[in-house]
Amino acid sequence: MVAAGHTIHRHHCHHAWDNSLAPVLTVAPGETVTFDITDASSGQVTPASTAAVFSNYDSARVNPVTGPVFVDGAEPGDVLVVRLESYAPSGWGWTANIPGFGLLTDDFPEAALLHWHYKPDGSVPLLFGDVARIPLAPFTGTIGLAPKEAGAHSIIPPRRVGGNMDVRDLVAGSILHLPVEVAGALLSIGDTHAAQGDGEVCGTAIESPMQVTASIDLMKASPLAMPRLDRPQVPAPADPGSRVWITTGIGPDLHEAARSAVRGMIDLLARERGLAPLDAYMLCSVAGDLKISQIVDAPNWTVSFHMAQSIFN
Amino acid sequence: MVAAGHTIHRHHCHHAWDNSLAPVLTVAPGETVTFDITDASSGQVTPASTAAVFSNYDSARVNPVTGPVFVDGAEPGDVLVVRLESYAPSGWGWTANIPGFGLLTDDFPEAALLHWHYKPDGSVPLLFGDVARIPLAPFTGTIGLAPKEAGAHSIIPPRRVGGNMDVRDLVAGSILHLPVEVAGALLSIGDTHAAQGDGEVCGTAIESPMQVTASIDLMKASPLAMPRLDRPQVPAPADPGSRVWITTGIGPDLHEAARSAVRGMIDLLARERGLAPLDAYMLCSVAGDLKISQIVDAPNWTVSFHMAQSIFN
Repeated sequence: MVAAGHTIHRHHCHHAWDNSLAPVLTVAPGETVTFDITDASSGQVTPASTAAVFSNYDSARVNPVTGPVFVDGAEPGDVLVVRLESYAPSGWGWTANIPGFGLLTDDFPEAALLHWHYKPDGSVPLLFGDVARIPLAPFTGTIGLAPKEAGAHSIIPPRRVGGNMDVRDLVAGSILHLPVEVAGALLSIGDTHAAQGDGEVCGTAIESPMQVTASIDLMKASPLAMPRLDRPQVPAPADPGSRVWITTGIGPDLHEAARSAVRGMIDLLARERGLAPLDAYMLCSVAGDLKISQIVDAPNWTVSFHMAQSIFN
Repeated sequence: MVAAGHTIHRHHCHHAWDNSLAPVLTVAPGETVTFDITDASSGQVTPASTAAVFSNYDSARVNPVTGPVFVDGAEPGDVLVVRLESYAPSGWGWTANIPGFGLLTDDFPEAALLHWHYKPDGSVPLLFGDVARIPLAPFTGTIGLAPKEAGAHSIIPPRRVGGNMDVRDLVAGSILHLPVEVAGALLSIGDTHAAQGDGEVCGTAIESPMQVTASIDLMKASPLAMPRLDRPQVPAPADPGSRVWITTGIGPDLHEAARSAVRGMIDLLARERGLAPLDAYMLCSVAGDLKISQIVDAPNWTVSFHMAQSIFN
């Protein structure tokens, strides 16, 4: 049951986590709020942009979050329970390789920008040129609370209180638990994505403005070390008879193993589908998944990168 | 089409990778071989064993592999293509917490051993007491080639030439590509599992003797940095309306983040299902999945651990 609720407009946003920010809204537990969210560039990227936008890019304005919302009665040691009720995507999004940002930034120093124009109801997959079709799977990349430490904290890294977690499982119907560190919790949401793979390897997903409606509840005095959630099952692929490509990275460092696995997939997509490496890298970011196959056979771990063949034309 | 093939019995096994080992069989590309595989303890664990078996455990004998098979014409720089045709599981398996081995070895210093007795045809899920039902999903944890470096190399860590990769996607119908480093490739297979989650977090899966039938082919002069494979789609859960629990670890070290995420799931299973922490840890190893949600929002990454609620009674 979703009660009629409040709406916070996208100009009520902030660009750092700071527990001294004035709330833009106060709600009681059980209330529902619609967050209007601009894209992760704060509007620097528009549907008319080319990759040249990144030559004069203000990184202090990236990843704006709408909020904060003060939750009556929330105190340090409580858990804020956020149910993501629905997403209303805008129909436009972008994916970029931004120099200096991403898992393989040394391999891909050049800026690139792709636009996506899609049906907001998800009835048609998002088209990656004439190469692939990505199912619409909207979620919020950034959802978090103010940290207890005073001052302004960068919005790029996530923390124990959430933030830029980029967990693609935060879909409609998911329920997120976040540990409260300050009075009122101070919830903000931003960085909405039309789709993303596990890893977000090139550093961007399908960055897309949208509205997020969430209901907010509170569990008093509930210990929680790190954010947790539960989600509906992942939908089965459209073509259950299709196969999955898997590349691996093996070695003593998980980060380097992840790089190897993604490089392997870029090589594979170049050979099997004729993709330019930079295009393959961006496709990996929106549609491929990084998994840890084993983390116990010391000293070498296995990281694997998975790409469903069902997305390809 | 699987041609009638050869069989290698389980006593033709070895306990280290060594390119000077004499082949037990020579095949031509295109031929099929059935590997009879003992369990990862080399028979030290039997259906009558208790956890006391680990107080006098010979770790020099763990993870035996059946082989090696010399492939006619294989040379360094080629790729060996192994298609996993079928598995014939034995119907018995074990899962253990072995002191000193596993992702959370400091948290769980005590030995534990679980037995699984299951129908080899997969018609009934494997029973985790009266708590959960695990679908049979047999695969080989260890499949690899001899490395070019001389001498005996531990069989525990995987390498570029494969080995103990513990990639649970190596199911029937999967096709694995391995880079050849020595003449004849010298393929061996072992460490068969009836099921495992991504991560194999407690250090063991459902360790189960079985027969593996594989066809072997060769791609000449084909560059490949790391093993890759393709697999049939993952089967949809029996109950598509069920949900997935997800715990997270957030921080600058992927390994430590993985530990946080698994600890979060153990806490959750203790609270939600009343499991003893050590039982929850072993269940996580056979049925939960470690994923890297994002690896770009420096300096903090997000690792998540996923457990399908559909397995619980």
